[in-house]
Formats: sequence, structure tokens, C-alpha cells
Amino acid sequence: MRVIGVYPPIATPFTDAGALDTAALADNIERWNETGLHGYVVAGSNGESPHLEDEEVAEAVRVARRAANGTQLVIAGTGRQSTAATIGLTRACADAGADVALVMNPSFFPAELTADALARHYEAVAEASPIPILVYNVPKFTHLNIPVPVVARVAQHPNIVGIKDSAGDIGQIIDLLRACPRDFSILLGNAPAFLSGLQVGAVGGVLALANVAPRECVAIYDLLREGSADEATAIQFRLMPVGRAVTAGYGVPGLKAALDLLGYRGGAPRPPLLPLDPARREALRGILVEAGLLV
Amino acid sequence: MRVIGVYPPIATPFTDAGALDTAALADNIERWNETGLHGYVVAGSNGESPHLEDEEVAEAVRVARRAANGTQLVIAGTGRQSTAATIGLTRACADAGADVALVMNPSFFPAELTADALARHYEAVAEASPIPILVYNVPKFTHLNIPVPVVARVAQHPNIVGIKDSAGDIGQIIDLLRACPRDFSILLGNAPAFLSGLQVGAVGGVLALANVAPRECVAIYDLLREGSADEATAIQFRLMPVGRAVTAGYGVPGLKAALDLLGYRGGAPRPPLLPLDPARREALRGILVEAGLLV
Amino acid sequence: MRVIGVYPPIATPFTDAGALDTAALADNIERWNETGLHGYVVAGSNGESPHLEDEEVAEAVRVARRAANGTQLVIAGTGRQSTAATIGLTRACADAGADVALVMNPSFFPAELTADALARHYEAVAEASPIPILVYNVPKFTHLNIPVPVVARVAQHPNIVGIKDSAGDIGQIIDLLRACPRDFSILLGNAPAFLSGLQVGAVGGVLALANVAPRECVAIYDLLREGSADEATAIQFRLMPVGRAVTAGYGVPGLKAALDLLGYRGGAPRPPLLPLDPARREALRGILVEAGLLV
Amino acid sequence: MRVIGVYPPIATPFTDAGALDTAALADNIERWNETGLHGYVVAGSNGESPHLEDEEVAEAVRVARRAANGTQLVIAGTGRQSTAATIGLTRACADAGADVALVMNPSFFPAELTADALARHYEAVAEASPIPILVYNVPKFTHLNIPVPVVARVAQHPNIVGIKDSAGDIGQIIDLLRACPRDFSILLGNAPAFLSGLQVGAVGGVLALANVAPRECVAIYDLLREGSADEATAIQFRLMPVGRAVTAGYGVPGLKAALDLLGYRGGAPRPPLLPLDPARREALRGILVEAGLLV
Repeated sequence: MRVIGVYPPIATPFTDAGALDTAALADNIERWNETGLHGYVVAGSNGESPHLEDEEVAEAVRVARRAANGTQLVIAGTGRQSTAATIGLTRACADAGADVALVMNPSFFPAELTADALARHYEAVAEASPIPILVYNVPKFTHLNIPVPVVARVAQHPNIVGIKDSAGDIGQIIDLLRACPRDFSILLGNAPAFLSGLQVGAVGGVLALANVAPRECVAIYDLLREGSADEATAIQFRLMPVGRAVTAGYGVPGLKAALDLLGYRGGAPRPPLLPLDPARREALRGILVEAGLLV
Repeated sequence: MRVIGVYPPIATPFTDAGALDTAALADNIERWNETGLHGYVVAGSNGESPHLEDEEVAEAVRVARRAANGTQLVIAGTGRQSTAATIGLTRACADAGADVALVMNPSFFPAELTADALARHYEAVAEASPIPILVYNVPKFTHLNIPVPVVARVAQHPNIVGIKDSAGDIGQIIDLLRACPRDFSILLGNAPAFLSGLQVGAVGGVLALANVAPRECVAIYDLLREGSADEATAIQFRLMPVGRAVTAGYGVPGLKAALDLLGYRGGAPRPPLLPLDPARREALRGILVEAGLLV
Repeated sequence: MRVIGVYPPIATPFTDAGALDTAALADNIERWNETGLHGYVVAGSNGESPHLEDEEVAEAVRVARRAANGTQLVIAGTGRQSTAATIGLTRACADAGADVALVMNPSFFPAELTADALARHYEAVAEASPIPILVYNVPKFTHLNIPVPVVARVAQHPNIVGIKDSAGDIGQIIDLLRACPRDFSILLGNAPAFLSGLQVGAVGGVLALANVAPRECVAIYDLLREGSADEATAIQFRLMPVGRAVTAGYGVPGLKAALDLLGYRGGAPRPPLLPLDPARREALRGILVEAGLLV
Repeated sequence: MRVIGVYPPIATPFTDAGALDTAALADNIERWNETGLHGYVVAGSNGESPHLEDEEVAEAVRVARRAANGTQLVIAGTGRQSTAATIGLTRACADAGADVALVMNPSFFPAELTADALARHYEAVAEASPIPILVYNVPKFTHLNIPVPVVARVAQHPNIVGIKDSAGDIGQIIDLLRACPRDFSILLGNAPAFLSGLQVGAVGGVLALANVAPRECVAIYDLLREGSADEATAIQFRLMPVGRAVTAGYGVPGLKAALDLLGYRGGAPRPPLLPLDPARREALRGILVEAGLLV
């Protein structure tokens, strides 16, 4: 299996009572199905993974697998802090129909998470997993950057097939491309670096931005493959403020508010996250209008 | 209820198969019972809380409550990333016999964890909890320092009775003392600042060091109350390298190795943490000998 | 020579044309002479040292030496980025009458400033200096914390007589006291940690706060030596917001504005620093009134 | 004037006595003149600018101007901490023959260096400078990232003609391109992001790597302009370990050691920097050989 293309780490809708809203989730996916996305990441960090119970993650995977097209991959975010809990959730998601697991690294005890400890963790998860594993590096949330040699080591494992790197450091993307086997999938996890990452050899992206601008993200990917770099660059430039807004700028509450504004079902995040306040919601609306995503 | 005195955030022993070792846990507590400790923190960060399932935390609380003296408090670490999960674990620990809950703040989405979001989280947990709440501030692990005004706000809630502050910043301890009601318990969470914190008005400590030097930590506390600052200071100085070693220096693997060396039951940490390697174990032994804790 | 007691790192007044205002500087010192201060630090970081030319530093030292009492020490901030420039400025200040040099560590190339490089730097400066050297550790500005073993190494040099440690970490103060010779002067560089630092054995402080509350800082020092810890603690608590304001809160512009409000000659900082805006000046006035420093 | 192309921030050679070695400097430039470089940056951070006296900077500029080809630009690093000192050095370098000044931002008092303070600083320098100004953003050394809106503001000044951005963040490069006038020169200051920066619209680079691989850096630039992205990418990939080594990996001592190995005149850095130790020098030699720069 080769993981390539564009995947949104989808928002997780909740009911007014705060439970997983499976109907809203299916609705969103059916709408995204028309946009050319190559699949979905369920329960990534933008899906409020740390605020979801294991059963909820598995249920969301089940719903997504049912709602997605047959050609689309369903990728489940299964990283937990302990190796055992990560294995448990990975297996549960495989049972629920996930094609691939995206495994954020443990991060709570940074001083002890040496290169060897990180590599052993990924190798143990890969050994125990019935489905292929993607490494997930996201220093913004984990406060730890997985060293390139660790990725190169675990890339040797037959069940570890790629990495989502959200560090946003184009030099590190090149270092990963140099260090890993050619069939190891390097995916961008950060919209601002998406175009450049593809230009140097990455094969796709897992982008919060693809929740709200799926067609445009797919277009960047397709245009570059067709050799139309100028058109791809123009789209990348136009989307920059949206990419900034739905991650660093306004966080998960902003991502969900943007979905609401665009007719998807976003809704409120789970506490302790608070919904976006009205003033910021208006600012966000302006950014979407400016980028041509909303009229 | 007033939380005062010295509490170790106890290590969590595991069986060879990796399960919670309730017998070893009870053994350790029975031995600590002889040392004058005012109670125990179960499933704190030094107890590998992020690597424990909720059921394991509750079970450890049950064991600790049974093994502890009747006058000792059993404090359960119940902070999870979502408000709902934190409430769930807090209630489970209350049912299991915990006297108090120590609630590490959520930290995954730092930009959205504004002062208001943090305060609402603690207030919601306090509302729902049958037992009193201690705030737990530990920037080393959460990468977020709870602002003093947030603590001052939640200190107004009748069910929030104190804070364990592990920031190690004596100025912040003074700011907390100035900002909070007199009966709000300020507890040091950091051995190097323990003596000084008590000197300015804190009422106790939750110290990894108290796992391995319980009598000495209690002696610092008692001597200061008796007005023997010089003797307390001498002990504080003597213990410095041990305090450094069992937290920053060697982490949880070091804490458990030190317990093994001292005849307690430490054992291996849960993966992804790795046991202390032999060379560092020897260095640690030297530190314990030098401090007079081991012959 | 033993450096003990309370020293303000004095603000550097400028004329309207932006030149060193020697008359204002002398006026300030004459007024401070009545307050019990043990001396002055000229051209410390609060004196805008990085914005002063070498000739200005030497001239300020000359003025301060002339205006100070004979029993007071004049300490010159002489740290520059290169070892040669540091030696040059140290010698110039010695010629100008400085009793001691306070040497901030070089910091521009942090990765190359290894323990050995830092120690050699201090040893070279001490060798070449006609006056004794104080190490100056201020991670807030240098983004580098001088490791305790480096201080312990250079403390062996006969011409290195102490350290101003502004890290604000009481544990590090204890580590320094444990690692350095008894006659090596440990001075606090951070008002919030001043009382606690003295309580564990430090012998004084170089405090921005002592610019605006010299009598109170001296009182904390004197009261602790007389065994009146409670009174000293009360003053420390009362001054906390002022200590926060004149450093972290409002920076050098705030320090100078506070001096203006108190009748000293503060004036505008040197660009790129901007004067405190009126709203913050009013907030600062409130803090001074609240602390009883202004009516 | 439009600053485009490839510029090495050249190392500053010293004599055995530690003085500026003007003959070695001229020798290096004469050799670099054969490589297609578009000019030189004298007294950049890789030129040990913080360890150079103003007179030395001006003298180095004079030497470089004399040794360089008439078509090459000589760019002087003139940023000092105070606005006045920066103006002074900028004027001195203009007098010495510099075509452009590269102005690192002040950074000592980060909290007070607000957007407005930074913009005013650059505008004041630009007003006073007889030669055009390039902004220099290098968070690795300044611990401060100049916000994009500040750059956009100062880009309106007719005497501020571009920026060297060493943050290495491709998203920020795109943001700068979106925010600044089309004739404002965006130059990469970081070798790993060089290719990608050019691909999105930057017009050149100021690269430590161009000291040791000038022809290759120029080739990346030329090949991209000719539409040969694949060949440019191949060179970028091949040079990655060298780019890492001569900056982050081994610092200025490594840059100078690499120059020595390649037959240029590097020599020892100025203390407190220490020369590269023999083991690291051998590792560096291996990296140069591996990249095909040394046989």
C-alpha cells in the first residue's frame, strides 16, 4: 500500500449533548466525497483526538469507512501516550475498518523519549498492528521533533509506510526524502509548506486546510503532477491566510467555525476548548471570502 | 479539609507482564507508613499517569487507601485532556476512596487554553467532583504555566482547595500566596524549591524526592515549623543532588531504579519509557550513597 | 574583597539630545547615597549596556565613582560578545575607578558556547583584569543559562569573586552555594527570589527594584541578618508587584518611568527602546502607590 | 538597485595575533570571484560580526570592495543593538564602499521590541543611510522573529529594498512575497530552504553554504531560472549535509575549518569561539568529500 494524495484530518462533530455526532460526520464525508480527496484522517489532532475516548475513535472510523468511497483510504489517528494503549487503539481501529493508522509519538516525558525509545515504540506498534502505520510528527503539539534518523530507522520496518510531518520545515522534508526508502510516503502536515514539499518530492498532504478547501488542495496536487507549477503556486498563495487561520490562528474552534460557515457541520468543540467567539468568527468569514471560498 | 504536609507522588509498580502490581504497591505504602508522610499522591506524573488506564488509576487508589494509615490522605491524579474525561476519572477515584483529586491542566491545544478556558475547566471539574480538587501546575510536562490570576479565580470555588505548583519559581509561589485565600493550600511540587517555599508560607510539598527520602522531607517540614531553619536548610542542601536525579536527571526510570536500590519495589516503567541503563543506575547509586540514603 | 549587600543596576539617564547625562546620573546617586545601598552597578542590562558605547560606560563609571560614598562599591557592567572587547572595556572601567566588573557572558553563538568555551572566556577576562570579576548569568537576555559546574570552575580563579544570578531559580542558587567556595559571593539578580536567596545563604542582590525601592531592599537584607524573617518577608511580599513591573512587566522604559514618578531622573530610553506610553505609566503609578512607595 | 542572486556571508580571517587579516580576506575573494557569485556579505553573523569592532567592519568592507569584481555587490552587516550605533556603522560602511547594508534587528530587550519599535528602528536607519538597506531576520541568533507585517511596513520605505530571512520557514517566505511590493528582494538566509524559496518567488540567497560551495549555489539559482528544476533539485539534495554542517552543525568554527580544507583561508575564530576540534574536523572532511566538494 502506498499512501499518496490529499487527506483532510477531519473535524469531529458532536451533538448538543456532547456525544459523537455520527450523522453529521457521515454528512460531511458525503459532501467531501465530491471533491477529489484521496481519503480521510479520522481522529487526528484536528479531530480533537486527545479529547476522544477509544470507543469514539473506533466508532468514527466505522462511520467514515461506511461513508467514504471505496477508493478512498480511511486513516485513523491512534497515537496514545503508552505503547500498549496505542496498540490497543490501533487494533480497534483496524477492526473498525481503518486502512492505515497515523500514530502521533508519545511526548509526555520528553527527556526519556530518546531516539531509541521512540524507534522501539514505533516498531512495537508496527509489529502488533494489522494495518500499515504512518509516523506522525507534530512538534507544535508534542513539543518534540522526531529526529530524521529515527524516521529512517523505522522506515525499514515493512509495516511502517510513511510519515505525516507537520513541522513545516522544508529542509527537514528534504532530509527525510534523502534518508528514507523511495516508497516511503512523505506527507506534508502543514498547509504553508504543502506546495514546496510536493515540489521536492513529497507525495501528498494531510492538511487541516483540506477540510475547508478540499478542491483547491487537490488542485495543487494535480497541477504539480501535470507540470503546471505556476497555477499550483497561485492557488497556494491565495489560500495562505486560510491555512494560517484554520490551524495556528484560530485552532480547532476556528476549523469548526469555518466548516459551519461553508455549510458543513462543524459545531462546538469539546471542552476545555471553547467555541470561536463572534468577533473572531466574523474575521474568519472575511478570510474565507477574501480567498474565494465563500461568497 | 486542609491539605498540608509532605506527600510523595508515588511510583506505580508493574508486574513482569506489565500489569499494575497491587501487591508491590501495597508493600511500598506499608513501608512508607513508618516515615511520617502525610499521605500519598497516586497516579501523579511520577506515577506514570499518562500511561495508566482509568481503571488502573482507580484500582491503585483503592489499594493505596487500604494500605495507608487512616490519618493519611490519599490524593488521586485525575487530570485528563478533556473536561469530561477528567470528571469521569475524578468520580471514579472518589468512589475508589480518594480523599482529594490532583488535577493536571489540559495542555494539548495551548493556544486555545486561555485563562478563561482553563478556569472554566477547573470550575466544571470542581462542580462535578464529590471530593476536593487541587490544581496541578507542571510546565515541564504541560509546556504551559497556569497564570496566577487563573489560580486566584478558581481558588474562590469552595471545592478547589489548593495547588501543587511544580514550576520551581519561588516568585510565583509568593505571587500565589498573595493572590489566594489564606486557607488555600500552596504545595511545592519541586524539591529544590521546597525549603524556600515553606519559608515564605507554603504549607507542604508533593515531591518525587519524598519517594526515596520520605523521612528527610518530613524533617525539613517539621524543623521549619519548630523554628529550626538551619537544620532544615542543611537537609535541603544535602538532598539536592538526589532531588535533581529522581526528576530532571533520570526521570521516572530513575525514580524507580532509586526505589529498587533502597529496597522498595520500583521495577521497570511502562513503555515507551525504558528502564535505566546500568551505567546511570551506578551513577544514581553513588548519588544516594553520597546523600547518606544508602550505605 | 567581598561583594555583599544591595546594589541597584542603575538606569542610565540621557540628555534630550540622547547623550549620557552625567549631571542627572550624579543627582540620582547623591539621592541614593542616603538609602543605605552598598554600592552601584553602572551599565548593567538595566542601564542599557548594549546600547552604550565603551566610552560612555567608562564615563558613567567615572561619574558614579565620584558621586558615590567612599564605602560604596562601584561595579561596572563590562561584558561584550568577544573576549577581547570584554577585556578592553573591563580595563577601561578599572581605569575609570570601578572597583569590580560584572561580566555578562557572551551569548551570540549559543551552540558553540560550550562549558569549556564559557569558562575559558571568564578565565581570560579575569587574567587580564586589574579588578575582581563577578560572573553575570541572565538567561532572560542571553537565552543561555551558565551551567553550575562552569561557575564552580571559574570560582577557583582568584580574580573571580562572585556571581550575579538572575535566573530566578532558587534551586540553582542552592546548587551554586553547594558548588562554590564559601567566600565566593552569590548575589541574586532577581527581586522575586531575593528574600529566599538570602535565606539559603546568598550574600546580597543586584536588583532593578533597588533603583526604586532602595531602602526596602536594604531593609530585607538587614532584617534577615538580624533574624527578623517575618518583617523581611512582609516587605518582600509588599514589593512583589513593583519588582515584577520594573523588570518583566515594563522593562527598562518602565524602570525609567518609575524613577521619574519617584522624583529621580529617569527620562527616555535610547532607541530602539520607546518611552513608556501614558496608559502604562498610569498603571505603573498605581503599582507604586499600592506598594507605599508613592503617595 | 535590485539585490538578486547568490551571496556568501563571508568568513572573516584573522592573523595569528587575532587582528583582521586583510590579505587573507582579499585572497579568498579573488578566488570566489571565479565562481559566479553575485557579490559578498561582509561582517554578517557568519563573519563573526558581533565580535568585530566597527573599524574592523569598515576595513573589511574596504578590502572586499577592492577585491571584488565591479559587477558584484558588497553588502555590509551593520546591525548593532542601538539605533544610533547601527546608523553609525552603516554610514561608516557606506564610506568604505559598501553598496548595501544588511541590518540585523536589535534583540537584547525582546519584550520591548514591539512591531512599532522594530519598524521605527528600520525606518530611522533607512532615513540616515546613504545606501539601501536589507532587513535581516535570523531568529536562531536573535531569538525573535520579525513579524511579516513589520517587514511589509518597512518595505514601503524607498531605502529599504529587501530582506534576508534566515528563519527557514517556507510559509513565511510565501507570506513575505504576498505582503511586500514586487520589487522588494526576498533572499533566503538558510541553505535547506534555498531551492524552495526560489521556486515560490524569492530572488536569491545569502548562504553560509556559498562560502564553501559557491558554484553549486549559483548553479541552483541559474538552473531554476532556466527551467531545469530537476537538476537544481539534485544539487540541493546533494548539498544538504554540507549546508547543515557549516551552520547548525559546526557553526562558525566549522565554516572556517571547511574553508581551510578547501584551500581557502579560514583559520581560527575569535574567542570566545574555539577552533573546531580534530575529531569534528575529520567528520566535516568526510561530509565535504561525500558531497563531491573535496577529493
